[in-house]
Amino acid sequence: MEILYTTAQEDGFHMPAEFEPHRGCLMIWPERPDSWQYGAVAARKAFARVAEAIAKSEKVTVLVSFEQYDTARRMLSSHIRVLEMSSDDSWARDVAPTFVKNESGVLRGIDWGFNACGGLVDGLYFPWDKDNKMARKICDFMDTDVYDCRDFILEGGSIHVDGEGTAMVTERCLLSAGRNPQLTKDEIEEKLKQMLNVQKVLWLPYGIYQDETNEHVDNVCAFVKPGEVVLAWTEDENDPQYAMSLADYEYLSKETDACGRKIVIHKLPLPKPICMEEEECEGLLYWDDKPTREEGERLAASYVNFYIANKAIIMPAFGDAADEKAQKMLAGLFPEREIIAIPARDILIGGGNIHCITQQIPL
Amino acid sequence: MEILYTTAQEDGFHMPAEFEPHRGCLMIWPERPDSWQYGAVAARKAFARVAEAIAKSEKVTVLVSFEQYDTARRMLSSHIRVLEMSSDDSWARDVAPTFVKNESGVLRGIDWGFNACGGLVDGLYFPWDKDNKMARKICDFMDTDVYDCRDFILEGGSIHVDGEGTAMVTERCLLSAGRNPQLTKDEIEEKLKQMLNVQKVLWLPYGIYQDETNEHVDNVCAFVKPGEVVLAWTEDENDPQYAMSLADYEYLSKETDACGRKIVIHKLPLPKPICMEEEECEGLLYWDDKPTREEGERLAASYVNFYIANKAIIMPAFGDAADEKAQKMLAGLFPEREIIAIPARDILIGGGNIHCITQQIPL
Repeated sequence: MEILYTTAQEDGFHMPAEFEPHRGCLMIWPERPDSWQYGAVAARKAFARVAEAIAKSEKVTVLVSFEQYDTARRMLSSHIRVLEMSSDDSWARDVAPTFVKNESGVLRGIDWGFNACGGLVDGLYFPWDKDNKMARKICDFMDTDVYDCRDFILEGGSIHVDGEGTAMVTERCLLSAGRNPQLTKDEIEEKLKQMLNVQKVLWLPYGIYQDETNEHVDNVCAFVKPGEVVLAWTEDENDPQYAMSLADYEYLSKETDACGRKIVIHKLPLPKPICMEEEECEGLLYWDDKPTREEGERLAASYVNFYIANKAIIMPAFGDAADEKAQKMLAGLFPEREIIAIPARDILIGGGNIHCITQQIPL
Repeated sequence: MEILYTTAQEDGFHMPAEFEPHRGCLMIWPERPDSWQYGAVAARKAFARVAEAIAKSEKVTVLVSFEQYDTARRMLSSHIRVLEMSSDDSWARDVAPTFVKNESGVLRGIDWGFNACGGLVDGLYFPWDKDNKMARKICDFMDTDVYDCRDFILEGGSIHVDGEGTAMVTERCLLSAGRNPQLTKDEIEEKLKQMLNVQKVLWLPYGIYQDETNEHVDNVCAFVKPGEVVLAWTEDENDPQYAMSLADYEYLSKETDACGRKIVIHKLPLPKPICMEEEECEGLLYWDDKPTREEGERLAASYVNFYIANKAIIMPAFGDAADEKAQKMLAGLFPEREIIAIPARDILIGGGNIHCITQQIPL
């Protein structure tokens, strides 16, 4: 593994879209007792279900602590690889490398700086050194060269690309005080262009209400093909999310992508607000002086947080009336893929969803 | 990775000889402060030299704790892979899988039971659970099926094979009370035949004097090709090693291998006795109530503990007059390989040598 100090752009590499073919998927086993209630038992089951569903499409590698290797190994099918790697939490989307490739199919990773979504300003846990080391170590394991981009704070969940020159982010996240406050919006955009090798960055104003990642784009909006997105949507004008989704809709309606296309926006319904219950809160360790979650706290539930596997869409289900609507809409948008809905409340409680706990490795 | 409960013999797999082509080599980074003096600084340098020498021939993967990943990564060339994996010590020969393959070139690992060379009887450290888990985890990382043979205690350093149906072991080690005392010699031999798929086992009576592994065969005798071995040898009749090497010589002289060949024995000279110095002892942490090494303690130095890489022999050097003789003899025996001698006192202090800290992966 060479550690590279150049950029994808100058080397002729770019980030493929998630809907392009994968050689595999990375996940991280849940363990942290302030993220995953009741010893992470339910989270383990939910993660395992996600891994098994993806493994029908592509090779899944699950990274796990020394202590939990045996449990993960026995809970997962033999065709899923389990690999020891220390982590601080389980957000493969955010801590695994962002992969780029060139026209010959050579793969490289990007090792962004990671500070638990906000560092000492509003980061979600402390310390985060194990997570910050993972991208490079994953590239080492894969024998893939890696771009050292640790001086720029970015999580994989805060970017989406269409594979044809367009990236999509939220202003709330990328301009947050806990990321790269020393850089201007233009400088951040330039960094994304260089490292992802895109020509245009779409800046949605907002993500999902109360999304503690400072509103990662991957919870609110996703490309389903070049020129087409799904946008998380509510018809309830009293919901704080309404104005946020509307602002995103209006922004996207006026924009074109890198190829000059108008963007087709599919409104993907949101479930009704999902809130923490007392029993769930009791199952979590305290992180510091305040509880990680409080009873009644609204969680950032969204169907947009799906994973596009080679042969399937792995989408979260919340036991809500909108589950079926969302599933049908995704079936229409991805006609060649099976839509697999997995009950995801036990992932949501940790602070993210199926897209957040996965990272694709392009073919 | 499938966990298999059958045997290599019944599945048509066998262990190739070390002098056959490799696809790579596994090593483990030294760290344990009761094995490696002065914070393992000198050991790291020596291990790195071994890794670099082997990496000229084949892909080297170095397994390392979370804590030392960055140091290993920076000390080793970029073409060497560094992978996090927890261990108790650094004996890849003994804790990595023994690899077997079939006629189609499919590779499988054997996951022997490991108890630090003697368990509660005379094991070298406690606990040994991390080491005992490594073979399976390495197979998982390599995506290679693995034989579960954990009910049988064996270290890779206690066996040698010629790749043509013959294995070689020492009675001292394989019949030791800390290995498999519930099994008879015949039962142990049968297990080796089944798992390595050999037809004959050669039982040398002894290994190297004071070898704390209960005299692993890989420190005293090694195949250089089918039908030919090097045997560690001293001409000093007052050395306790003399009678041990002589007994091995006499045993081998009367034996034939699995193909019915008489065995050609090359006497590889031993260096003069190498003993621990006071300063070296001071550099080691205590393991328990007694020091790990005592001043004047004789170490089990032997040139037989070399590694056969694809294009080179990596042999230990001790700064002894015999270094050159041994190197010349190995050059004659391996005419197509470069003979690379690496100063190995800093490995020897840990209780083994270059063969002990490596494990080949057959092509």
